[in-house]
Amino acid sequence: MEIKTFVPKEKRGLVVVITGYGKGKTTSAMGMALRAVGHGLKVCIIQFMKGDLYSGEWDGVKKLHGMVELTATGKGFCGIEGNPYSHAEHRKNAQEAINLAHHKMDSGQFDLLILDEINNALHLNLVDLEQVHGLLNTRPPLLHLVLTGRDAHPEIIDRSDTASEVRELKHAYRKGIEPQPGIDF
Amino acid sequence: MEIKTFVPKEKRGLVVVITGYGKGKTTSAMGMALRAVGHGLKVCIIQFMKGDLYSGEWDGVKKLHGMVELTATGKGFCGIEGNPYSHAEHRKNAQEAINLAHHKMDSGQFDLLILDEINNALHLNLVDLEQVHGLLNTRPPLLHLVLTGRDAHPEIIDRSDTASEVRELKHAYRKGIEPQPGIDF
Repeated sequence: MEIKTFVPKEKRGLVVVITGYGKGKTTSAMGMALRAVGHGLKVCIIQFMKGDLYSGEWDGVKKLHGMVELTATGKGFCGIEGNPYSHAEHRKNAQEAINLAHHKMDSGQFDLLILDEINNALHLNLVDLEQVHGLLNTRPPLLHLVLTGRDAHPEIIDRSDTASEVRELKHAYRKGIEPQPGIDF
Repeated sequence: MEIKTFVPKEKRGLVVVITGYGKGKTTSAMGMALRAVGHGLKVCIIQFMKGDLYSGEWDGVKKLHGMVELTATGKGFCGIEGNPYSHAEHRKNAQEAINLAHHKMDSGQFDLLILDEINNALHLNLVDLEQVHGLLNTRPPLLHLVLTGRDAHPEIIDRSDTASEVRELKHAYRKGIEPQPGIDF
C-alpha cells in the first residue's frame, strides 16, 4: 500500500477555537503542537491562568527538540475554591500574557500559536474582547492560532475557521476518582 | 509563587472515550500522549483504519525519545469516497489491530494505550462489540486506555470513566479551505 501525503494547493493559517465543559480542550491543543512538530513547524504555547500547578505537558514539550516554546503565565484558575489571588492579580498576569502573545506573533518565529485558556480568561474579564479581536486582527495570514477554554465568546467563534465544543458525557471525578497524571494533568 | 504538584492518593488506570463529529478526537489523544511522556509514562498508540495517508503525529511521536510507540494498522477510512479497499480487507486489518492491542496490553510495557478510531471501527463492523468489551475486561488496572472515534458504542461509553463528545461548531472545510498540515493532519 502506497502512503500518500496531502499537500494543500493553498497554505493558510487557521483560527481554531476549542471550547466546552468536557475533557479535551488543552489536551487537543497539545496534540496539535505534537502534530505540527511532526511537520517541522515551530510552536508557541502561552497558557493563561495556569502556572501554579504542575502539568505533564510542561515537560512533554521540552522533549520536542526546541520546536515548542511553552510559557505558563498565570496563577491558577481565577475564582475557584482555594485560589488565593485577587481578580486584579489574575488580570495583571493575563494582560502580560496578551502582550507576550503579540510579541510572539510579531516575531515571525512561529507557525502555530496556542493561547491556552484565553476563552475562559476573556469570560472572567481578565482580558477584554477587544484585546482578543486585536490579536485576530494582527495575526499574520500564515500563522495558525488556536484559542482554548470554556465559554468561548460568540464573536470569537464567528471569526474562527474551525470551532469545536467538547461536551462532557462522563467524568471520573464525579465518581470520586482523583485526577491522574498523564490523563488529567 | 510556589508551583504545586498534585499527587493522587490512589493511582489507577482510566478508561477515556473521545467521540463526536467535531475536530479534536485523535488530536486530544495525541495531547494525552505528550502529557503522559512529560510524566515519564510509556505510551502505545494503535491507529485503526489510518495508515494510507501521512499525518504529522507519526513523526511528532518519534521525537519523544522512544517513549511513544505508534502503529498505523489500516488502509484509510472504510467506505469513504476514493478508498479502494473492500470491507473484508479493512476488517482484516482491524482484526490484526485488536490482536496487537491485546499483545501490547499484556506486555506490561505501557502505562497508556491509545486505540485511535476504534469507536468508528466498531460502528463500521470492522471489529465486534465483544472484542472491545474483551479489551476492557483484560485491561490491567493501572493501564490508561483511550478509545477515540465518532459513533462510540453506548455500552463502551457506559464502561468508561471519562467520556467527551466533540461537537463541530464550525469547520474550515465547509468554507472550502483544504486540510492544513499541523492542524488537520
